[in-house]
Amino acid sequence: MINTLLLPELREMIANGDDDGLREFASALHPARAAEFMEGLSAHEAWQVLRASDAAKQAEIFGFLPDAVQVEIVETVAPRETSPLVADLPADDRVDLISDVHPDVAEEVIPLLPAAERRETLQLLEFPEGTAGSVMTTEVARLDASLTVHEALEEIARQSQDLETVYYNYIVDDENRLQGLISARQLVTHFGKSDTPIADLMQRDVVSVKATDDQETVAAKVANFDFIAIPVVDDQHHLLGIITHDDIIDVLREEATEDAHMAAAVDPLDDSYLATHWFTLAWKRGMWLGILFFAALLTALALQKYETDFQRVSWLVLFIPLVISSGGNSGSQSATLVITAMTNGDVTLSDWWRVVKRELLMGICLGGMLAAAGYVCAIWMLNDYRPDGSNVVEMFEQPSSVDMLVVPITLVAVVICGTLCGGMLPMLFRWLGLDPALMSNPFVAGIIDIAGIVIYMNVAVLMLETLESSG
Amino acid sequence: MINTLLLPELREMIANGDDDGLREFASALHPARAAEFMEGLSAHEAWQVLRASDAAKQAEIFGFLPDAVQVEIVETVAPRETSPLVADLPADDRVDLISDVHPDVAEEVIPLLPAAERRETLQLLEFPEGTAGSVMTTEVARLDASLTVHEALEEIARQSQDLETVYYNYIVDDENRLQGLISARQLVTHFGKSDTPIADLMQRDVVSVKATDDQETVAAKVANFDFIAIPVVDDQHHLLGIITHDDIIDVLREEATEDAHMAAAVDPLDDSYLATHWFTLAWKRGMWLGILFFAALLTALALQKYETDFQRVSWLVLFIPLVISSGGNSGSQSATLVITAMTNGDVTLSDWWRVVKRELLMGICLGGMLAAAGYVCAIWMLNDYRPDGSNVVEMFEQPSSVDMLVVPITLVAVVICGTLCGGMLPMLFRWLGLDPALMSNPFVAGIIDIAGIVIYMNVAVLMLETLESSG
Repeated sequence: MINTLLLPELREMIANGDDDGLREFASALHPARAAEFMEGLSAHEAWQVLRASDAAKQAEIFGFLPDAVQVEIVETVAPRETSPLVADLPADDRVDLISDVHPDVAEEVIPLLPAAERRETLQLLEFPEGTAGSVMTTEVARLDASLTVHEALEEIARQSQDLETVYYNYIVDDENRLQGLISARQLVTHFGKSDTPIADLMQRDVVSVKATDDQETVAAKVANFDFIAIPVVDDQHHLLGIITHDDIIDVLREEATEDAHMAAAVDPLDDSYLATHWFTLAWKRGMWLGILFFAALLTALALQKYETDFQRVSWLVLFIPLVISSGGNSGSQSATLVITAMTNGDVTLSDWWRVVKRELLMGICLGGMLAAAGYVCAIWMLNDYRPDGSNVVEMFEQPSSVDMLVVPITLVAVVICGTLCGGMLPMLFRWLGLDPALMSNPFVAGIIDIAGIVIYMNVAVLMLETLESSG
Repeated sequence: MINTLLLPELREMIANGDDDGLREFASALHPARAAEFMEGLSAHEAWQVLRASDAAKQAEIFGFLPDAVQVEIVETVAPRETSPLVADLPADDRVDLISDVHPDVAEEVIPLLPAAERRETLQLLEFPEGTAGSVMTTEVARLDASLTVHEALEEIARQSQDLETVYYNYIVDDENRLQGLISARQLVTHFGKSDTPIADLMQRDVVSVKATDDQETVAAKVANFDFIAIPVVDDQHHLLGIITHDDIIDVLREEATEDAHMAAAVDPLDDSYLATHWFTLAWKRGMWLGILFFAALLTALALQKYETDFQRVSWLVLFIPLVISSGGNSGSQSATLVITAMTNGDVTLSDWWRVVKRELLMGICLGGMLAAAGYVCAIWMLNDYRPDGSNVVEMFEQPSSVDMLVVPITLVAVVICGTLCGGMLPMLFRWLGLDPALMSNPFVAGIIDIAGIVIYMNVAVLMLETLESSG
């Protein structure tokens, strides 16, 4: 969402070297809004705007610039100038940025960070992407259980400069083990009785996550509990950091986008659609298109096997796309329903039998509906069917209404096959420890395509032979 | 995510009427966690657990029960007993619940609510579903600009019982017009200088949304600005309420699920997959399956038109599914990429020309790749191709490698058609004011199926006739 309202003015001020004007622009607006207005600028221009302001403002606005612009600024401006901005970022964003810039630049920037930030950055870089550790920040208020409400507020005010949030504050023992939680809400509510010990107010059964937990699981936990933040601990329950609501929202959006891409057979992108290099995009799409192509090739081989049948009963060809797409559509409906239900925590592996029953019923019901429609259409289309080529060997001059039962029978079978495969494949993936969203839809489509052809032809051969021998 | 750990104990306590045990269970745990342990219980059993506790605890746990259980409790227990629980819910959740229960029950419950909650509920029920007004809550701290930090903290402590959040507090004038924002963070940070007037600290350029704004737009705004809450105003900038981070997360999850369902041609569900009645599910799937079925039927009609060609050149049949699925897959990749990019704000309508160029390039590149693969496969499969039926009229005993160029040429054309349609249709939908996620994928698939057949047969007829006449 590029807001181009102030772009001409900004560009003019940059061209004229009007640093006072630029400083005023930066100080008058919420940093997020200033960053929004700057989105149309190149990284070089954005840096001209930033450098006009004081260090604190620079850092605030820099934090709201899109990732790609941050990366470009750090890669093109002297590390000596950008390292204060990088140091000032919340630890989680700083680590993301440093992982994204060219390794050579990262190597120059890291030594320029203040000792505490440097240590923290190197420590967080250790956590693999996608884990709770990789999205957490270490800047969390740690309080001693012996404080009163008044003392706690004073202590938080003192620490607040370095904190990502003051809303959830954690009570730890001498060895940094998590003991309890006191929210700013509880502190503010007890503002009138400010000599109350926080030990009397703190919540002891604190919901936490492990640093190695999957970020998707963490996001689901925070969303279910309506938390603003969740503490991250190690195996010995030492407090390592917290993950805040804004990171959770980022994780949820990222995962939703990834799931959508995987469902459409695109390998998840690291950047946005327009920011991704076309070659990367071609690779991430082409790879899966190629795999699906070879799956589709199997349908060609299956068809080849039945080719003589097609020549004998040429009208069968007409319904190939209809059969395949009905199976594919009902299968992808089932797969998507089960994947989203698992993502939202509504369906677990233990529900598998309920899913089977549901999808079987659905397959019979939807397949029956399509079969009825298909039969009517087949009769209508083939009513005065007489292929042109009069010297073509035909089993039938015109298919009888009994012959045409091939179409509805196949449709019921293919749709049931689609709903069952679609419902079960994502659960099978989860059971194998894989992400259920991983290619389930294209997989289902591939399986159904081949199954559709095989079912169609077997039903046709069986029925028509039976009729032939009995006729 | 059903946690069955304590279910047997809970059931035993219910059976024995062990109210002390149930009360202890409820008071020992975080209400969200107590609700989690209760998820396996029926609504009747859940009510037995709740009624053992005092009113405040009941209301807290009730607020964390799944929507369906809340609805069942309100519908089955006497309104006199449940109305205090309903009254105690945050205004937005209360309105959701009242919209979900049977209208007759809602009519009984609403008059039993305290006057303020009743008025608020009736007022919020006016906002159409999906708008900012429908997800906001009216319980927001309103402060006067004349207060000091100390006074503001006292005032918030006084109001806090009725507030959904104390973290963002709004400064309004005498006529309730929004003037500024002061966060609990700013108040806590200035705890040491508590006689500072909040007018000196407050942020005046407050980002707000209109009550009639789309909830998806609001969620995107909050996500971009990393807010905990956003104020909702009317046209005259009167403060109506706020939307908090937990509601934003719910909106984001809901919208992601809806988009996924629509992409798979399922009309979005109001409840979770397993909670939806099978008949509703069959309808929401069947409706779109039916529409797609008739789109697929058009492919059958298109095929019928070319049937004599298929009889003359029978090997063409083999590649029908391959051609259709290559176009469909590349089209749904493009559609999904553009839809997610628009949802995340990375692509706007003004980018249409960049999208066209990108998708055209992608179509040429991916189509070329599949064409090369397809040509190799066609040569391999048709190498010693000799249909069985020797009295079938054939244009060729065996297709030459020039004839087989039909396959790669068609693949390039169909893939380009797929990427362009897939890229443009969602933008066209957005331009028409429709949700781009709305059925774009199935639409694209339907269009590509027919286009695939038409392109394939026209290329074949044109090429083979040219070769025939020149041969």
